[in-house]
Amino acid sequence: MANDFTSTLQEKIIIGDGAMGTMLQACGLSSGHAPESWVIKKPDTIYKIHKEYVAAGAGLIETNTFGANRLKLKSLGLEDKIEEINVKATGLARKAAGKVFVAGSVGPTGKLMEPHGDLSFDRARDVFKEQISYLVHAGVDVVIIETMSDLKELRAAVVAAKEFNVPVIAQMTFTERGITLTGSPPEVVAIVLDKMGVDVIGVNCVAGIEEALIVIKKMSRVTSKPLSVFPNAGLPESKGGETVYPQTPDAFTDKIPELLKYNVKLIGGCCGTNPRFIKGIKQVVYEAKVSNNTNTDAKDENKNRTYLTSNHTYLQASEDKPVFLIGERINPTGRNDLKEALKGEKWSVLRKEAREQVIAGAHLLDVNIGMAGIDREKCMKKVIQELQLEVDVPLVIDTPRTGVLETALKEYTGRALINSVNGNPDVMDKVFPLACRYGAAVIGLTLDDRGIPSEVEGRLEIARQIIARAREYGLGEEDIIIDPIVLTAGSNQSEVMKGIETLKRIKEELGVKTTMGISNVSHGLPNRKLINRTFLAMALGAGLDFPIVDPVDEDLMATVRAANLLTARDRNGQNFLKWYGNFQGNKSLEEDRLDNNKETKSSRDKENDRLLSSI
Amino acid sequence: MANDFTSTLQEKIIIGDGAMGTMLQACGLSSGHAPESWVIKKPDTIYKIHKEYVAAGAGLIETNTFGANRLKLKSLGLEDKIEEINVKATGLARKAAGKVFVAGSVGPTGKLMEPHGDLSFDRARDVFKEQISYLVHAGVDVVIIETMSDLKELRAAVVAAKEFNVPVIAQMTFTERGITLTGSPPEVVAIVLDKMGVDVIGVNCVAGIEEALIVIKKMSRVTSKPLSVFPNAGLPESKGGETVYPQTPDAFTDKIPELLKYNVKLIGGCCGTNPRFIKGIKQVVYEAKVSNNTNTDAKDENKNRTYLTSNHTYLQASEDKPVFLIGERINPTGRNDLKEALKGEKWSVLRKEAREQVIAGAHLLDVNIGMAGIDREKCMKKVIQELQLEVDVPLVIDTPRTGVLETALKEYTGRALINSVNGNPDVMDKVFPLACRYGAAVIGLTLDDRGIPSEVEGRLEIARQIIARAREYGLGEEDIIIDPIVLTAGSNQSEVMKGIETLKRIKEELGVKTTMGISNVSHGLPNRKLINRTFLAMALGAGLDFPIVDPVDEDLMATVRAANLLTARDRNGQNFLKWYGNFQGNKSLEEDRLDNNKETKSSRDKENDRLLSSI
Ligand SMILES: [Zn+2]
Ligand SMILES: [Zn+2]
Ligand SMILES: [Zn+2]
Repeated sequence: MANDFTSTLQEKIIIGDGAMGTMLQACGLSSGHAPESWVIKKPDTIYKIHKEYVAAGAGLIETNTFGANRLKLKSLGLEDKIEEINVKATGLARKAAGKVFVAGSVGPTGKLMEPHGDLSFDRARDVFKEQISYLVHAGVDVVIIETMSDLKELRAAVVAAKEFNVPVIAQMTFTERGITLTGSPPEVVAIVLDKMGVDVIGVNCVAGIEEALIVIKKMSRVTSKPLSVFPNAGLPESKGGETVYPQTPDAFTDKIPELLKYNVKLIGGCCGTNPRFIKGIKQVVYEAKVSNNTNTDAKDENKNRTYLTSNHTYLQASEDKPVFLIGERINPTGRNDLKEALKGEKWSVLRKEAREQVIAGAHLLDVNIGMAGIDREKCMKKVIQELQLEVDVPLVIDTPRTGVLETALKEYTGRALINSVNGNPDVMDKVFPLACRYGAAVIGLTLDDRGIPSEVEGRLEIARQIIARAREYGLGEEDIIIDPIVLTAGSNQSEVMKGIETLKRIKEELGVKTTMGISNVSHGLPNRKLINRTFLAMALGAGLDFPIVDPVDEDLMATVRAANLLTARDRNGQNFLKWYGNFQGNKSLEEDRLDNNKETKSSRDKENDRLLSSI
Repeated sequence: MANDFTSTLQEKIIIGDGAMGTMLQACGLSSGHAPESWVIKKPDTIYKIHKEYVAAGAGLIETNTFGANRLKLKSLGLEDKIEEINVKATGLARKAAGKVFVAGSVGPTGKLMEPHGDLSFDRARDVFKEQISYLVHAGVDVVIIETMSDLKELRAAVVAAKEFNVPVIAQMTFTERGITLTGSPPEVVAIVLDKMGVDVIGVNCVAGIEEALIVIKKMSRVTSKPLSVFPNAGLPESKGGETVYPQTPDAFTDKIPELLKYNVKLIGGCCGTNPRFIKGIKQVVYEAKVSNNTNTDAKDENKNRTYLTSNHTYLQASEDKPVFLIGERINPTGRNDLKEALKGEKWSVLRKEAREQVIAGAHLLDVNIGMAGIDREKCMKKVIQELQLEVDVPLVIDTPRTGVLETALKEYTGRALINSVNGNPDVMDKVFPLACRYGAAVIGLTLDDRGIPSEVEGRLEIARQIIARAREYGLGEEDIIIDPIVLTAGSNQSEVMKGIETLKRIKEELGVKTTMGISNVSHGLPNRKLINRTFLAMALGAGLDFPIVDPVDEDLMATVRAANLLTARDRNGQNFLKWYGNFQGNKSLEEDRLDNNKETKSSRDKENDRLLSSI
C-alpha cells in the first residue's frame, strides 16, 4: 500500500493494532528481555501476531521496533543489531500487513534529556534519525513515535522524523494526573506537535480509555489535527506473580463513541490489549461511523488562534482575555548587572530577573542576550535551560543570529515566539524554516532593508509581505505577530502615533495579532515611565495584544489593569475589583470624596436624562 | 438705494464718511452739548455736512444719532425727543445720500454694565432695540454700532440689531494697548462678533490709522468677515483751549494700501476727520484696487477653525497644539461644599474652585449648577459674573434648561461653549437659535430620545444629524463639538471602547472636533483616578480635542503632558521637558537606572540595526 496514509485519514477512521510486548510475553518472552530481540530470534511469532491484528481488522500495524534505537539497544547489548532489527521488523510487518498500513514504531531512548540528564537535543535527534532512516528505507508507510514522557525528547524525535518524506504520528503517555511525566498538559503537547507539523497527535499507554478521553478532550480544544488513541487495557495488576491487565474488550470499547466526537481518527490498543480488543474497536467504530466528524466547528475555531506555550503552560491570544505582557528585562543592554551575570554564568541573577517579572505579572519573557564577549550559542542554551527551570511562562527568543536562535529553539520545550523577522526576504528565508521546524510563532517587524517606512501604508505593506511569505512556508496568520514599531518621541515625535495607527489597521485589515516594544517610545527622555504607561494605554486602546514592557513598573501594571477593564478584556472588572477592592471595601480619603458621586448617577448621566425628559 | 449693502460689500470697498461731532464743533457746537440736539435745532448744518461727505466720495454716510439712545438722551434732558431725533436724523441723511448708503449710527449708553455698574444685559438690549427700531423704520440701509468699549454692551446692541432685518456693522474702540477699555483683545472681539452674525466687524475712534492696522491685523487672523476702519485723525491735542486733531489727510491715507491687505472693506474717518480725508481715502482706495482681495487664503483657513473665548482670551482648537482641558469641578453633584456655596451665595468657594482648576491647567471650565432648592436663573447669572471676575478662561455652559442657558449666554462676555444638544430635534430647535443669537459653540451628544445607540454607526448617524440640523440654523461644522459619549465601565463595560471608536470615526469622517466627559467611565468603580487617566490616554491617542476632566488630579495631568508629547501636540516636547527636565537635570535613582539605556541605542534599535546588517 502506498503512502496515502494521510489522505485515508481524511476519509475514515483507521483502526490500529494492539499490544506487541504483552502479546510476546504471553508467548514466552520473559520480562526483562527486549521484544525487539525476537525480531531476530523468533520472527515467526512476531509475524503471527501481526497477522492476528490484521485479521482482527487493524488498518495499521506497528513494527516491533519500539525500543530499536541505538541508545536503548546498547543498554540491551543489541547495539550492533540496530539496522537488522529495524529492517527485518519492517519486513515482517510489511509481509503481514497486506493492504493495511505499516507504522514504524519509535519509542524513547530511555535516557534523560539535558539539563536533568546528559542527553543533548542534537544527540537525541541523531539517535532517532538513525532509527527512522532504517524504518523509512525499509518501507514503513508512517512513523509512529509513542509512549514518550518528555516533550523535549519527543521534539527531538519529531525533528528527526520530519527530515524524511513520511507522515508522522506522535503520541505521549500521561500520568493519572493527566499530564506527562515531565509535567506537560495535553494542550501543550497538542499545540507543540501541531505547530511542528506532526500529522497525527495522540496519547498511548495510558491506564485506560477513560484516561485517554480526558487527554483527547483537552487536545481537541487546541488543535484541529487528527488525534490518535492507543490506551492500555486498564491498570496492570499482579496476579500470582504475573502482570495482568484487567479491562475486557467490551469495557474498553464502551467509550469509543465518545472519543470519536473529539476528532480521533486512529484508535488502537497498548499494553494488555490483544486482537479481541481490536475486533471490538472495529465493530464499535463501524457502528459509530455516522456520528463522527462532529468536530468541524472546533476545527474552524482553532484555525485562527495564536497559541504560545512553555513546557507546562499555554496561552491563547484572545481579545476577551486580559492582555498578555512580555517582560522585557532579560536584556543586557544598559544593564551591567546582567552583563556580568551572563559573562560569569551567575544564573541566579538571571533567574531572579525572570522570577520577579513573572511575579509582577509578565505572561511571557523576552530573552535577549545580545552582548559582546560571550559565546552566544553556549550562553543562550544555558539561559533557556535555567529559565525553564525557574519559570513556567512561554519565552520569546530575541536574537538576530540564526545560530543562536536555533540553539534556543532546540533547548526550549514548548512553542516559543521568535523575535523577530522583518520585511527583508533574506531574514525571512532564514527564520521561517526554523519556525516551522521547531513549531515557533514569529514576530514580524514592519521594516525592511530600506528602514522603517514613515507612512502607515508602507508599514502595512511590509506586514502583508511578511504574512504572504510566511504562508509560502506553511505558516498561517495565527503564527505571525506583527510589530508595527514605535519610534522614540524624542527624535521621531511626528511618527509616534503612526505606530498606533498601523497597529489599528493591521488588526482591522490583516486580522493578525500585534506586539510592540513600548519602552522605545521614551528613549532618551525624562520620566520615561510616565511616557511608557501613557503610550501603553493608547496602544492597548487600539487593540495591542502582546505589549513588551517592564512588568516590575507598578504604575505601568496599574495602567494595564485599568486598560483590561476598559477594553473589556477583564470581564466585569473581576481582576480590577479583586486588586483595588469594590467601593464598599477599604478606601482612601480621596476615594471617599469620589464616592459621593457613586450613590447618585453621574452628572453626565443625569444630564442626559434631563436632556431627554425636561426640555 | 435698496438694502443691497452686503452684496455691494462683496464687490467693492465702500468709503465711509468722516466725523460728524468734530465737524459740528467746528460749526459752533460747544463741547458738552449733544450733536444730536442739532438734528432738531440746526438740521441744515447736519444736512450740509452729509452732502459734503457724499461730494467727497463717501459711499456710506452715518446718521447723526450716535448718542440717540434713551439712556444717553435722558442724561442730556432729551429723552422725550428720542423718536424725533432718530427719525429726523435718518431723514436728513437719506435726503443727502442720494445713491449712497445710510448707516444708522448707534453708540454706547454711557452706563456701566452689570456687575461693574447696574445696567443689565436685558435693559441694555431693550434700550438699543428702541433706538434701532426708529432708525430701521425711518429707512437706514444698515445699522452701525460704534465706539463701543465694553464687549458686553456691544453684545447687547448686536442682539438688539439682529432682531431687525438689516445688516449690522459693529465697531469697537481700542486703547493704545491694543485692547478695549474692558480688556478684550481684537481677536476676541472679532470671534464674538463673527459668531453673533455681525456683517462687518471693525474698529473706530482709535488714535490713528496705524493703531487701527494693528487691531485689524489681529482680527483678520480669526475671522473672514469684511472688516471696517474709522480711525481718528491722530491723538487730539489741546491748542489754545481748543481740541485739535494733528493728522493730515496725506499721513492718514498712507497706510490704507496696507489695511486693504487684511480684508478691510469699509473705510471712513472718526474724530478729527473731514471731507478732505474722505476724498483722500477714495483716491487711495481707487489706486490700490488691484491689490485688494489678497486675503482669500486667510478666509479659507478661518473656515474650519473652532474658536472659543472669554472676555479677555481666546483659544483655537488645533491638532498641533496641546489639548484643551475642560475642568469639570464646578458641578454640585455629589459635592456638598458646592451645594452649600450655591445655596448660600458663598461665591468665594466657587471662585476658589475655578481658580484652582485654572492654576492646575484647565483651559476651559464647565459650569454646572444643576441642583434643587435654588433659583437657577438667578444663580447662573451670578455664577457667570463671579467666574468672569475670577478667571480668564472660556466657560462651558452646562445646563439642560434653555432659560438658564440663555441667562448664562447673556451674562457671558465671550464665545461660550454650550453643553449640550443631542439628536433630539426638539432640543436642537431650542438650543441652536440661542447659539446663533449669542454666538456660542455647541456640544452635541450622540444620543437621542431613544437613548445612546450601542453601535458606533448609530452614534455616528446622530452626529451627522446634529451637524446637518446645525447647518440649517447657519452653524458650521466648526461650531459643533461632538461628544461620542463614554459609558461607565462598571455597568456598560463592552461599550466603553465604542466611545473611542466613535470618536475616531467622527474625526476621520465628519472632521469635527470632539469632547468627552472622562470621569463617567469610572463611575461606581474603585480607583477612579487610575481608570480615568488610562481611559484619557486612550481617548487622546484617538484624537480627543476637549477632554472634560478634573485638572486638580496630578496624575491625570501628567498623563495629559505625556499624551501631548506622544501625539506631537507638544512640539519637540518643549512643555514636557520644561516640566520634567531633560536627562542631564535632576533625576531620581529610578531614572538613573533607566538612564543607563540612554547613552546607547535602545535594544530594539540595536535589534533592528543588527537584523538589517548581520543576518
Ligand atoms: Zn503501554
Ligand atoms: Zn504500546
Ligand atoms: Zn472718534
